[in-house]
Amino acid sequence: MSITVVGSVALDTVETPWGRNEDGLGGAAVYFALAAANFTPVHMVGVVGDDFPDRHMQLLAAKGIDLTGLEHASGATFRWSGRYHEDVNIRDTLDTQLNVFEQFHPSIPETARTAELLFLGNIHPALQAEVLAQTRPRFVAMDTMNLWIATTPDALRAVLREVDAIVINDGEARQLTGEANVVAAARQVQALGPRIVVVKKGEHGAMLFTEADAVFAIPALPLKTVVDPTGAGDSFAGGFLGCVAQSGDTSSATLRRAVAYGTVVASFTCEAFGPARLAEIGPADIEARAALLRRLSEF
Amino acid sequence: MSITVVGSVALDTVETPWGRNEDGLGGAAVYFALAAANFTPVHMVGVVGDDFPDRHMQLLAAKGIDLTGLEHASGATFRWSGRYHEDVNIRDTLDTQLNVFEQFHPSIPETARTAELLFLGNIHPALQAEVLAQTRPRFVAMDTMNLWIATTPDALRAVLREVDAIVINDGEARQLTGEANVVAAARQVQALGPRIVVVKKGEHGAMLFTEADAVFAIPALPLKTVVDPTGAGDSFAGGFLGCVAQSGDTSSATLRRAVAYGTVVASFTCEAFGPARLAEIGPADIEARAALLRRLSEF
Repeated sequence: MSITVVGSVALDTVETPWGRNEDGLGGAAVYFALAAANFTPVHMVGVVGDDFPDRHMQLLAAKGIDLTGLEHASGATFRWSGRYHEDVNIRDTLDTQLNVFEQFHPSIPETARTAELLFLGNIHPALQAEVLAQTRPRFVAMDTMNLWIATTPDALRAVLREVDAIVINDGEARQLTGEANVVAAARQVQALGPRIVVVKKGEHGAMLFTEADAVFAIPALPLKTVVDPTGAGDSFAGGFLGCVAQSGDTSSATLRRAVAYGTVVASFTCEAFGPARLAEIGPADIEARAALLRRLSEF
Repeated sequence: MSITVVGSVALDTVETPWGRNEDGLGGAAVYFALAAANFTPVHMVGVVGDDFPDRHMQLLAAKGIDLTGLEHASGATFRWSGRYHEDVNIRDTLDTQLNVFEQFHPSIPETARTAELLFLGNIHPALQAEVLAQTRPRFVAMDTMNLWIATTPDALRAVLREVDAIVINDGEARQLTGEANVVAAARQVQALGPRIVVVKKGEHGAMLFTEADAVFAIPALPLKTVVDPTGAGDSFAGGFLGCVAQSGDTSSATLRRAVAYGTVVASFTCEAFGPARLAEIGPADIEARAALLRRLSEF
C-alpha cells in the first residue's frame, strides 16, 4: 500500500547546544516522507519556492518519493528558525516566514489519489479538509498543533470527525481536551472521532490507544546525545504509517509494531541536524534498532 | 534475604482534585516497607511521636514488618501537608513540621543489623552516614532529594561513594549532575559511586543503568485516575529492593525484573489516598499486574 502525505516543506535554521544548521532541508512532509519511504511508496504533496535547492529534490527523489504533487511556486520557500536549550525539550521559535506556504492550497495529483493511506500533516485544518474533499482513501491519519487547537477549534473538530487515526504529542492531547491525565485525554480524543490515538511523548516514548481497554506503551530509545530533535515527531508519524502500509492491515499487532517502528525511526532523526541521519538509514538499520527496542523493556 | 529501611514515618495531610486525607499514615519508610513486605521480611527504623495512632502500628505489624527499630519519642510525629494540582505532576508543599524527626538519630537494633540489604531513605546524608557506621550489609541502596543536593552536597557525595545503588527521580539526577539529558546524567551519577542507578520518571516509567552500555527502560502502567501519588516513589523503591532481596542476587535479569516490580507496586499506591491501596494488595495482585506490564510493551 502507498501513502500520500500533505504538509510543509521548509528550509530550517536550527541552533542547538551542539551547533547550528542554516537553511537546511526541513518541514513535516519531508521528515514524514523520508521515514515512511523505508517501508512503502510515498507521494508527497506540498509547495516550495524558486529558491528550493535542487539537491534537496534529488535527495527526496533518490529515496523513491514521488514528487509529482510538490508544487513549485514563485517566491521564497517556507522558512522556520528555532533554538533548542541544553534541555532539548525546550525550544524557542526565533522566526517563521510562511512565504509561498501562505497561499498554498493542496492539489492532489492523480498518482497520489491512488494511495490507500493518507497523512494530513500539521497544516491549517481548513486545508486538511480541502485534501479530504479531493481524496478519501481507506485509512486517514492526521497531525495538528497547539496553534490550530487554540485558534481554529471548530475546523479542527470537523476534520477530527473524518479521520481514523491521530498522531499528536501529550501536550496537544491535554490542550485539545482540557484533561491533565494523558490516558483520560486520549480517551476523550477518541470520542472526537479517531478510533486510533497515538500519543508521542518525546524522550518518554509513546502510547497507543485503540479499543476501550487496549493500551500500548513503550519507552523511547535512550539517547545520550540529542543533536537536533526537529522533525522527530514527523519521522515518528512516517515510521508509524509506513509500517501500517507495509503490513496492509490495522490489527492491534500491526498498530503496536507501527508505534515501535515510529519510535525507532524518530531516534535516528535526533542523532544529527535536520534529516541528515534519517536520510542515510535503510530498512536494515531500522530492523537492528527495533531489536534493541524490543530488548530494552524485556524483563 | 531481609531488608532494613531507615526513613521518615509521618502523618500526611494531602489534598488532590479527588479529595482530602487528613493526618493519614505516611512517610518514606512506611511506603517502602509496605511495598517491600510483599517480597521479603522488612525491618523498619524510624521515629514516631506519642500521638502516632496504634492502628497504624497494627497495620504495619500485620504486614509482618519488624518494628523493633521504630523509636517512640516524646512529642508529635513528623507531619507533612501538600496539595496536588489537576496535573498531579505538580504539587505544593503547604506545611512541614519535623517535630520528633528533628532530633532523630537512627539506631539500628540487632535484628535489623542482620539484614543483607539496606535502604537509606530520603533523610539528611549525615544521618545516612550514621546508619552506615552501624551496619554495612552486602547491598546498600539510597534515595535523596533536591534539598540535600542543594544544601549538603559534600555530605551527600560522601554517602554516594559508599552505596551500590541509588533510586532517584529524573529531576534529581539532572540537579545532582547539572546534565539535562537523563541518560548522560545517570552515567555521571554512576561515576559518583553507585554502580546501579535507577531513575524514576513518574507517569513516564523508569530506567535502569548498570554497566557502561546496559540500559533498561519501561513505561509506567497507564492510569486514567491518579488519586494520590504521594509515596509512589518510595513504593517503587520498596518493590525494587524487595524483588532484589527475594531473588537473592543482583544479576542484570534480577535488576530489570526489580524495576518492573517497583513500577507495578507504585501503580497501586497511586490508586487511593495514602497507603490505603498499597496496604491491601498481596503477591497475587502484584503478579497479575506484572503480567499486564509485560504485555503493555510487547510488539
